[in-house]
Parts: sequence; structure tokens; C-alpha cells
Amino acid sequence: MQQQTDYELAVKTKYPEQIVIAIARDENGKANPVTIGWTMIASGDPPMMAIALATKRYSAHAIRHSKCFTIAFPSADMAAAALFFGSNSGADIDKLANCDCKTQPAEKIDSVLLADAVANFECTLESETVAGDHIIFIGRIVCSHINTAPKDRLYTVAEGHKLGSVSAD
Amino acid sequence: MQQQTDYELAVKTKYPEQIVIAIARDENGKANPVTIGWTMIASGDPPMMAIALATKRYSAHAIRHSKCFTIAFPSADMAAAALFFGSNSGADIDKLANCDCKTQPAEKIDSVLLADAVANFECTLESETVAGDHIIFIGRIVCSHINTAPKDRLYTVAEGHKLGSVSAD
Repeated sequence: MQQQTDYELAVKTKYPEQIVIAIARDENGKANPVTIGWTMIASGDPPMMAIALATKRYSAHAIRHSKCFTIAFPSADMAAAALFFGSNSGADIDKLANCDCKTQPAEKIDSVLLADAVANFECTLESETVAGDHIIFIGRIVCSHINTAPKDRLYTVAEGHKLGSVSAD
Repeated sequence: MQQQTDYELAVKTKYPEQIVIAIARDENGKANPVTIGWTMIASGDPPMMAIALATKRYSAHAIRHSKCFTIAFPSADMAAAALFFGSNSGADIDKLANCDCKTQPAEKIDSVLLADAVANFECTLESETVAGDHIIFIGRIVCSHINTAPKDRLYTVAEGHKLGSVSAD
């Protein structure tokens, strides 16, 4: 039975929540990764994915500048990098230069892949739309990659940015 | 290390994937539920959620008609209902009348809540945007509810619409 409550309380039932890392080059050519929980597949044919980024985030400027971005599914052993990418701003630091996170060149867009991720999707910016205090960027997937070694995907498993892998019960 | 592959293969690494059930009344007043894996939170203040629906789906017409919809987080014991809602069309049948799934009236919109869900969010239609073969509907959350009994959320845990609960490792 349902009981009315505050949104802040009700939304805590969302965990585990999938996360991705989006990477776009800024106007200086610096590849800037950001960790995002608000993401979904948006189209099947052609394949597209969507991410919601706070309007003020440096990453939003980078995506608008380069008009393309990578979406990586981080692996369970990338929790430290995911936390670092999500809690620092590319306006202040070069995140990839300050984190132990290997990259590879992207094939079809001017961005990078995360070498240890479960998968990487190269996207061209298809469109964007405002949703309250966030911008939804929709990317058309133009190239896909998977890890040569099978890995578990990383999730936010509980409040307080608690990250880890999950298993079906 | 990343290896280029087909999108269809790479996207199989997405599981477990969270699912929601969206419910909107059609032009005959019938509350029509549909199960959706392509969904995300889209704004924090005001709170909004987004769902991606195939352009042709009956549910898309119902949302456009009523301009509001419920987003329910189904519980792990709602797998049969979630499969039923996702594999039938409201154009053909009254899904709620043909499924053992209890409802409650919504408080602030003309829709229903799913009584056994983990949580329900009442949304007014804020905007919509096309993404390839899908439409992204963005809903502004105007009322929230949680189950009086704590329940696990339902996920698609593997290909072939395999549904179940998940636990952090």
C-alpha cells in the first residue's frame, strides 16, 4: 500500500542506480570525464543514449563545444576514478591527468575511451533539451567497444555515493 | 582494453537495468500501464523524471492525451505484471483489468498508483523531445509515495526480459 511522502524520501528507493562516465574535450582540447547517474538509452534505431547534466557543470560546456562525447560504462574496479570524476570540476583540474585511469583514442569522434571500462560508446551530439536544473544531451552512437576481459558494471548501490557491483538475487 | 564491436553486442553489458512502469489515462479514461527500461531522473529542483517510449506505442498517445502520468518503481514481486504490461498494447486490451495488480487513486493527477510498487511518482507532462525512434517524455513530479512495507526494486537482470531483484556484492 502506498503512503504519500516527500520526494526526497521516495527517491531513495532508486538504488542500485546504474552510472556512466561521459567524456568530452573542452575548448583547450582537454578530455574531461564526468560521472553521471541520470542516464538512459533513448533510441534503438539509430542507437542513442541520453545523459542529464547540471546546467552549470563544466562538462556541459565541453559537450556543447566539441559536439561529441564518449559514454563509458565503468567497471566495478573503477569506483575510485568514478568518485573522483564526479566530485571534481574540469574547470579546476585536469581530471584524467590526476587519476590512475587509462585511456585509449576513440575511433570516430575526437574524444577518448576508458580502457578499463565494461564498454564505451562514441556519440555525436544529436540534440539537447532543458529539464529543470539539468540539460539532457542526446548522443547518437557511432562506434561501440567492449572490454576484452569481461567485467562487472559499477553502480551506486546506496546513498552517500556508495559504489559497487551488483548481482541478481 | 577496449575492442571495437557492434552496438548490439556492446549494449548487452548494460544489465542489470532499472525499470519503471508508467501509467496514463487514454481518451476513454482507461489507465494504461507500460513497462520501461529507458528512464532516468532528469532534474533535481524541481524534481523531474524522463522516460523514452517508442513513437508508435499506445502509451505515448495516452500521455499526450492526459498530459500527466505516474512513474512507479515496480517491486521484485511484480515481475509477472511488469512483463504483461511491457508485452501487450493498450490498443488491444485493458491491461489493468486483465492482470492481478492492485491500484490506488493518485492524489494530484488523473491517474492511478500501483499499490504494491516500491514507490510511485505523480508527474505532469513538462515537455517532450524526439530521439530517433523514441519520444522522451519529461515529467515534473508533483506528488510522491512509498510502500508502507519496504520492498526490493525490480530490474531486468539479463537478456530475454529476465526480471528480478539485485543485491550489492
